[in-house]
Amino acid sequence: MMNLTEQITRVAAYFQGLQHRICTMLEQENNGSSSRGSDRGIQQTFIKDHWTYASGGGGQSHVLEGGHIIEKAGVNFSHVMGDKLPAASTNHRPELINHQFQALGISIVVHPNNPFAPTSHANLRLFAADKDGKTIWWFGGGFDLTPYYGSEEDCIYWHEMAKKACDPFGEDIYPKYKQWCDEYFYLKHRQEARGIGGLFFDDLNHWDFDTCFAFVRSIGEHFLEAYQTILRKRKATPFTEQHKKFQRYRRGRYVEFNLLYDRGTLFGLQSNGRTESILMSLPPSVEWHYQSQPEENSPEAKLYTDFLPIKNWVK
Amino acid sequence: MMNLTEQITRVAAYFQGLQHRICTMLEQENNGSSSRGSDRGIQQTFIKDHWTYASGGGGQSHVLEGGHIIEKAGVNFSHVMGDKLPAASTNHRPELINHQFQALGISIVVHPNNPFAPTSHANLRLFAADKDGKTIWWFGGGFDLTPYYGSEEDCIYWHEMAKKACDPFGEDIYPKYKQWCDEYFYLKHRQEARGIGGLFFDDLNHWDFDTCFAFVRSIGEHFLEAYQTILRKRKATPFTEQHKKFQRYRRGRYVEFNLLYDRGTLFGLQSNGRTESILMSLPPSVEWHYQSQPEENSPEAKLYTDFLPIKNWVK
Repeated sequence: MMNLTEQITRVAAYFQGLQHRICTMLEQENNGSSSRGSDRGIQQTFIKDHWTYASGGGGQSHVLEGGHIIEKAGVNFSHVMGDKLPAASTNHRPELINHQFQALGISIVVHPNNPFAPTSHANLRLFAADKDGKTIWWFGGGFDLTPYYGSEEDCIYWHEMAKKACDPFGEDIYPKYKQWCDEYFYLKHRQEARGIGGLFFDDLNHWDFDTCFAFVRSIGEHFLEAYQTILRKRKATPFTEQHKKFQRYRRGRYVEFNLLYDRGTLFGLQSNGRTESILMSLPPSVEWHYQSQPEENSPEAKLYTDFLPIKNWVK
Repeated sequence: MMNLTEQITRVAAYFQGLQHRICTMLEQENNGSSSRGSDRGIQQTFIKDHWTYASGGGGQSHVLEGGHIIEKAGVNFSHVMGDKLPAASTNHRPELINHQFQALGISIVVHPNNPFAPTSHANLRLFAADKDGKTIWWFGGGFDLTPYYGSEEDCIYWHEMAKKACDPFGEDIYPKYKQWCDEYFYLKHRQEARGIGGLFFDDLNHWDFDTCFAFVRSIGEHFLEAYQTILRKRKATPFTEQHKKFQRYRRGRYVEFNLLYDRGTLFGLQSNGRTESILMSLPPSVEWHYQSQPEENSPEAKLYTDFLPIKNWVK
């Protein structure tokens, strides 16, 4: 992979810088302006773990748990190498399975304590694999939002930011990757979307490397700004145990998606990745109830009627 | 499937009778001798739902939630027919996939409230499929135990009962199905057993139908007696919030197993089964914590050192 070494180094540096900036943002939101946080004067910071991968490389897992605002957040960077690309890493390139590969990425999942603040996920990744003396590379990633008590204003803003991230790269990009996101984060067994979507893309290499990388950076920057804005706006909303209970119930869907469908999770587990880092995405507290149905016209019912059905949030 | 109709009817009747007896037993344990239950005088009973399956048949889901003793229990009977046998239903008979089939079974998962009372699971099932004008049938099933705070006495008793269920059918049966259970209920990504095992078998048809059915009944009867004995003994053990927290944490492994590996769950979801009945096995309240490690020599550590490592509980 001689010819890509410099590019991979630049991508890794961007991912690690973004990891640092996201953690700093989340620590600020957690410790800063919240009345509980500042009253108590307790500074809660990310735990930082380094780990190594058996066949080469490793990662840095940053985790914050039990925060006033952030009930659990994981911000992972990893850069691993191996001799056998696992099947889950590519749908479109079966010919590369079992060839030498490098995978680097950043993965973010934030579960706020406040049920009015949505859970958020983002991922950016680069794969490179050797095939017949040539190096093939592609990017993937995206971001999506999972509200419990939705806000139309937030959904519109989230998708406007997604569109803004894409528009410099072509007008067709946002609708295409928005739809891909809706399709990807769909729980077939529930016939239900995981959240209100955002962007998802994979196998991206139809521009030159620098343009693809610029696109990936645009996704990263817009995620950081968009999620901070929403988290800041919602994190201090008053809530009751009933709201919290609904949040824990709905988080069950998050677990179901990640363990049944999520390609990143399955790739990680198949490739003997670090289990604690991969499953960091799972919510801190979850409930499952049989046949749970919200009361008609309740705020809980609105999630199902007004937010989860797939729609175009920006025109 | 003309020639099997009578046998299938007998098996269905046994499964439904067993479902009723297990629910009655659990209601008795929940409402009977517990001090909390009898003090309050609240009788908690199973909710019973009937449902139908698109391509034929249906099921009866019995669920008890939020009991004094039983935090959540699901006892499901189902008997479904279809034109296309899903892939997850058989490892050994790929030639039958997509052929006409019948599947009937009973599935039990009990999550007691008390962390000193183990979670238990049992399943008995019969598949029949048409192939070139012939009907091929096989039984599957087993039972297994998942303690949070283990008891050596309970583990030995549980496996003695498993052995007693098998011994009339041959001395080699218990060791073979005990090992299969250990292999099946293993979380590769954790390198950890789900619990302390029991019995697991599949593709059983090497005896005649009546002998196979007698074996399946023996499993059902021994499960009922063994689990009632253990539940009754442990359900009133005093416990603290710390014990409860560890139980909720360990229940995460149960979720991981069921959604990542369990063939029954995947069969159900693949075959468009009733999601709420299939996922009834998921625990009522669960926690995930990053890098959670019990203190050395603590009662929590003993689960990892003394109970989960695979061993022979009866000689």
